[in-house]
Amino acid sequence: MSNAYLSHHAPWGAYAPFILGEFGKGGGFALSDVHSPGRSVYVAYRRSGEDVQVLPFLSAPLGLGEFAYQADADGLGHTPPPTRSVPGEELERHLGWASDEWRHGPLRFRLLSPFGEVPTPGTDDAALKRAVCPVVLAELELDNRDSANRAELLFALEGVNRPLSDTTAGALLGAAAGRRWGVAALPGPDVEEVQDFDVIGAAFGERRPRVRRLGNAGGVRLTVPPGQVGRLVLALGSYQGGTVTAGLNAQFFYTEMFADLEEVLAFGLEHAGHYRQLAADRDAELRGSGLSCERQFLLAHAAHGYLANTELLVREGGRPLWVVNEGEYRMMNTLDLTIDQLFWELRYHPWTSGNVLDLFLERYAFTDAVQGSGGPLPGGLSFPHDVGVSNVFSPPGLSSYETEDLHGCFSHMTFEQLTNWALSAAVYGRLADPAWLTRRGEVLEACLASLLARDTDGDGVMDVDSARCGTGTEITTYDSLDASLGPARGNLYLAVKTWAALVCLEQALTALGRGGERARQQAQRAAARIAGAFDPALGYIPALLSGGSDACIIPAVEALVYPLLLGLREAVSETGPYGPLVARLRQHLQTALQPGRCLDPVSGGWKLSSTSPNTWMSKIFLCQFVAETVFGLAPDPHCDAAHVRWQQLGSAAHGPTDQVRSTDGHALGSRLYPRLVTAVLWLPLPEGPSLPRWEAALHSPVSS
Amino acid sequence: MSNAYLSHHAPWGAYAPFILGEFGKGGGFALSDVHSPGRSVYVAYRRSGEDVQVLPFLSAPLGLGEFAYQADADGLGHTPPPTRSVPGEELERHLGWASDEWRHGPLRFRLLSPFGEVPTPGTDDAALKRAVCPVVLAELELDNRDSANRAELLFALEGVNRPLSDTTAGALLGAAAGRRWGVAALPGPDVEEVQDFDVIGAAFGERRPRVRRLGNAGGVRLTVPPGQVGRLVLALGSYQGGTVTAGLNAQFFYTEMFADLEEVLAFGLEHAGHYRQLAADRDAELRGSGLSCERQFLLAHAAHGYLANTELLVREGGRPLWVVNEGEYRMMNTLDLTIDQLFWELRYHPWTSGNVLDLFLERYAFTDAVQGSGGPLPGGLSFPHDVGVSNVFSPPGLSSYETEDLHGCFSHMTFEQLTNWALSAAVYGRLADPAWLTRRGEVLEACLASLLARDTDGDGVMDVDSARCGTGTEITTYDSLDASLGPARGNLYLAVKTWAALVCLEQALTALGRGGERARQQAQRAAARIAGAFDPALGYIPALLSGGSDACIIPAVEALVYPLLLGLREAVSETGPYGPLVARLRQHLQTALQPGRCLDPVSGGWKLSSTSPNTWMSKIFLCQFVAETVFGLAPDPHCDAAHVRWQQLGSAAHGPTDQVRSTDGHALGSRLYPRLVTAVLWLPLPEGPSLPRWEAALHSPVSS
Repeated sequence: MSNAYLSHHAPWGAYAPFILGEFGKGGGFALSDVHSPGRSVYVAYRRSGEDVQVLPFLSAPLGLGEFAYQADADGLGHTPPPTRSVPGEELERHLGWASDEWRHGPLRFRLLSPFGEVPTPGTDDAALKRAVCPVVLAELELDNRDSANRAELLFALEGVNRPLSDTTAGALLGAAAGRRWGVAALPGPDVEEVQDFDVIGAAFGERRPRVRRLGNAGGVRLTVPPGQVGRLVLALGSYQGGTVTAGLNAQFFYTEMFADLEEVLAFGLEHAGHYRQLAADRDAELRGSGLSCERQFLLAHAAHGYLANTELLVREGGRPLWVVNEGEYRMMNTLDLTIDQLFWELRYHPWTSGNVLDLFLERYAFTDAVQGSGGPLPGGLSFPHDVGVSNVFSPPGLSSYETEDLHGCFSHMTFEQLTNWALSAAVYGRLADPAWLTRRGEVLEACLASLLARDTDGDGVMDVDSARCGTGTEITTYDSLDASLGPARGNLYLAVKTWAALVCLEQALTALGRGGERARQQAQRAAARIAGAFDPALGYIPALLSGGSDACIIPAVEALVYPLLLGLREAVSETGPYGPLVARLRQHLQTALQPGRCLDPVSGGWKLSSTSPNTWMSKIFLCQFVAETVFGLAPDPHCDAAHVRWQQLGSAAHGPTDQVRSTDGHALGSRLYPRLVTAVLWLPLPEGPSLPRWEAALHSPVSS
Repeated sequence: MSNAYLSHHAPWGAYAPFILGEFGKGGGFALSDVHSPGRSVYVAYRRSGEDVQVLPFLSAPLGLGEFAYQADADGLGHTPPPTRSVPGEELERHLGWASDEWRHGPLRFRLLSPFGEVPTPGTDDAALKRAVCPVVLAELELDNRDSANRAELLFALEGVNRPLSDTTAGALLGAAAGRRWGVAALPGPDVEEVQDFDVIGAAFGERRPRVRRLGNAGGVRLTVPPGQVGRLVLALGSYQGGTVTAGLNAQFFYTEMFADLEEVLAFGLEHAGHYRQLAADRDAELRGSGLSCERQFLLAHAAHGYLANTELLVREGGRPLWVVNEGEYRMMNTLDLTIDQLFWELRYHPWTSGNVLDLFLERYAFTDAVQGSGGPLPGGLSFPHDVGVSNVFSPPGLSSYETEDLHGCFSHMTFEQLTNWALSAAVYGRLADPAWLTRRGEVLEACLASLLARDTDGDGVMDVDSARCGTGTEITTYDSLDASLGPARGNLYLAVKTWAALVCLEQALTALGRGGERARQQAQRAAARIAGAFDPALGYIPALLSGGSDACIIPAVEALVYPLLLGLREAVSETGPYGPLVARLRQHLQTALQPGRCLDPVSGGWKLSSTSPNTWMSKIFLCQFVAETVFGLAPDPHCDAAHVRWQQLGSAAHGPTDQVRSTDGHALGSRLYPRLVTAVLWLPLPEGPSLPRWEAALHSPVSS
């Protein structure tokens, strides 16, 4: 296992990860972004008689900044303290669910990014304030018990421009970058502020003062007395004030609870005990989950990436507005991610999923036409791909992504987004908010009507594209995959998702007293159409039902997850009403999971499609859950180990990465991504009030 | 002359230059900064039958952004329109005082950054609103008169993420980066918005639509009908909303007049006629000034750099707060720059100089002690170097720059800043605001007392350092120069500035009825001390009056400018009360301006010190003014041509640069600097109400 991979360490809903993990590349705060700014992060310590040990988190050599001011000046040179750059391989690292820990000799350095249930706004202000405070913790411990002399410890960040004591009368020590981000400690007898161009020299050298306001690196220094373990607790916080979005004006939700960066940092330190305990609870929960080490890592890595992309805003007028940003692409609330992140949000804050679904309904839903053979036909309700990009909300009815006249990337995803909204609504409403679902009865009926309108030949699956495509054709979420998964019409993955949407709509409409019969009948047609496409000679269902690709794809089974989560165990059973479909899908999956087909022969990892080396981690995790829970396959440690290598080696520089090359995990797209939290499906369900209706027996196989 | 140098194009007081000029390096908006972000700027046109001509303002190859989304997708490729990258040498460029014009064949492209008098807030709201609107104009003209087919024109910027029509119902066309900056045109029949990854393809190709909201480059496209000259007027605007400073909370002043970026851009276009005329007036004024082409360029270049660094804020409670930022270093209201920029501000907005002097009095002035031989002695009133750095105001009494225990860069400049405040106050008050000066009578007396307290041996010049220096020693504004100009004690440059401060204080205190006798006596002592240090064998006064450097320095004459500006012509005459000093300084200057001493033997430009190749443009311009106005030297075109080469070649990548290597103009420090506007001294004085007391006869030599 490698220990040199980029990770996000982010508070919930602040869209402000603190980034660290690649050696020699620095890191630091990204605000309204998830790309590393590549600034040096100084973690250093010295024990008596030794050189200063500097951890490998710098992005540039030490202390060159001040030479820009000096030309050929006569300023006194100063002798830097002897330093040693710690090689990365000397570090031990462990990524927990809510922590990231490095150890080097006597030093223990942890970043804590705790998370947990977040109450619906308006229900528990104190808990909500703790949850939205845009702060994570750093903890450093230096063991000096075996020494008769003092030792010193430093944590500092490049890019700051002011000491925090200036604006807090010394109540906080540390450094900040304007009003935007900073690192703070509470004052104490052994705690000192440091700021300089050469922050190592200022912290460990003899020169004074330790604060030079022109210096661009700063933080906190701790002196550890002989015979003691020194401990430094730091708040790493951010503050993005004022209106931050365009198109639909909104501010960060936390700005209604905190006036400025100083309040955020002070609150973080004041509640450090709460945050530490919350992180410890999550870490213990994962450790005790029974998951393998590999899966623990993959879920922990995914959680860090998801949190980094979350953003809770408040609209003019006071309504909360939830956004999950799409990693490196920064698209907002991409609906084909929303449905996959639902598994996570149901567990901790289902109301955010409801918030997204409502935003789509309020502002982005549209009445579509479809391209009939004789001209446009009524298409019914649908939804665009996203609600905007990089804090810019698109105009009503439009996504930032989709354009006309294309057959691949950037074309419309109308049909898939219709299934995504309908499935998300059914799952969210049934499991977390039945009252909400009751109010959405007419919308569910409109979704069903729209699904039916797009099946012009009555076989249960999509036949016609949205008129928005112009001369182009619809695509699926697998936009950048090849012909086996990209096109929408005839797409096996999408056909099964259509069937699942119909099954779930049947359940919801029936429960709402609106009659599920039409949905049930259409689901039966879809099931028959899909099962009928099974090719006995191949042993699987070809990727495109009507020809054009005979690739074998794993995501054929993906959508079984939704009936399963809704407790519709019969629907995903080989002995149930859709038994023939489920049986075919079992055969399909067994065929797929052969080396050289959907198992990469080099790495041993899962390939979503037999015809492409481009494979997507979030979807692998989801399909692993289906394979194990519906079909009773055993987890394959060899395979999980490959997936870990993909993240820790192949895509190490890019944080949680969805699209990777199946041979080695080299990042192909969707870097710094939130969607990998599908891995949360692997976990046993939590105790607690959030999900009274979640099926407790979920994790026993269904049909064997 | 070269045409490939970086220039700022900035509205007044917005700290938001639009940067362009280096070929192949892009440019774009810098907000609260003056460093180029290096983003591509697309200026392109096509005439019928020709390739698209793309001007050399891109920083990267065309249109690679979208590949990040595509991996191995099947998306239709599109054939890009044939393009030609225009080599820089094909462009003609002319930098005017308020304009920057490029021509290529039928294309004329101008950036206009108009400036003029700015009324004191509260006196003329309409004029003030026009002055503070954070917008500059771009004008493009494409001559298609000789063609029977239409032609097309594009102006677009990398880094945008939204089309402006979305939030303006089509009242503006263009593109913006969030709420922060954008480019806009008014709608018209031939005007179209463009946004794409490949904005050249979108503007000139057949593919539709021309707006893809995910595209990261966007702007405006114009179709030019056959036989016509097409003309596109664009507003380039910015908006930095909310509290932008720390330490002392403030917002941009214009945010009280404009609600958002859209209002700024609309206002800019609505008042385009005003702005165009204002730029034309300034350009015509410079062209008609009688200055050589070389000096016209140097002054125009300086003006662009100064405007880029200006920042008008408003404090909580509504008081305006003026900041000039210090180029690459971003220190705020550096007092040794304030005094040099006074020459510019007196001409256009003297109240901003008064605002800075008042801020120093209110928050930064302190009562000093000095290091007597027997221990600390009372030092009296003084002032620190600056009021903060990069939008962070330092705590009261402290600069961001100065620290203790140093002998060179970053030590204290206490004595020099005392002379700078006193001289600036006398000049500002006498010339622009006598009522203000009357209210500052006691402060002027305190300045005099402090000057006297620092002369412990009674010879008129500084003997002791501020106690703030600790074990170090004071320095001057020439911090990064060598021992000939850097140290404060015994410094010839500072001694003459001390004398000038005393002469100006005498005038002010006498006029205020407070008695100028003590100042006059001390000025006489200082004059005698300086003149007495003249070394007949050398033919000049050594740089350090008490030994330690026998360098010959030009800035010995610098401070003659202040009595001169105040109309104290006798004080700077060889036949006046300080005749012996002035006569010695004439000899000094004559000796200095010999090749190999203070004329660089390679380039022919001025070297401030005979012992250093580090020379400072702003101070050269100031000393040229003194040499020509006080001593009647003729301008040397050979020398001015060298100075132009330093800026256009040696420091081309860094915009207006103060510290350069005298052999070739290679930048040594103080890049992107505001202080070069000392060149405005070369101009005849303007007509108008601002400076009723400015001496009209200033430009005739004094003493020959």
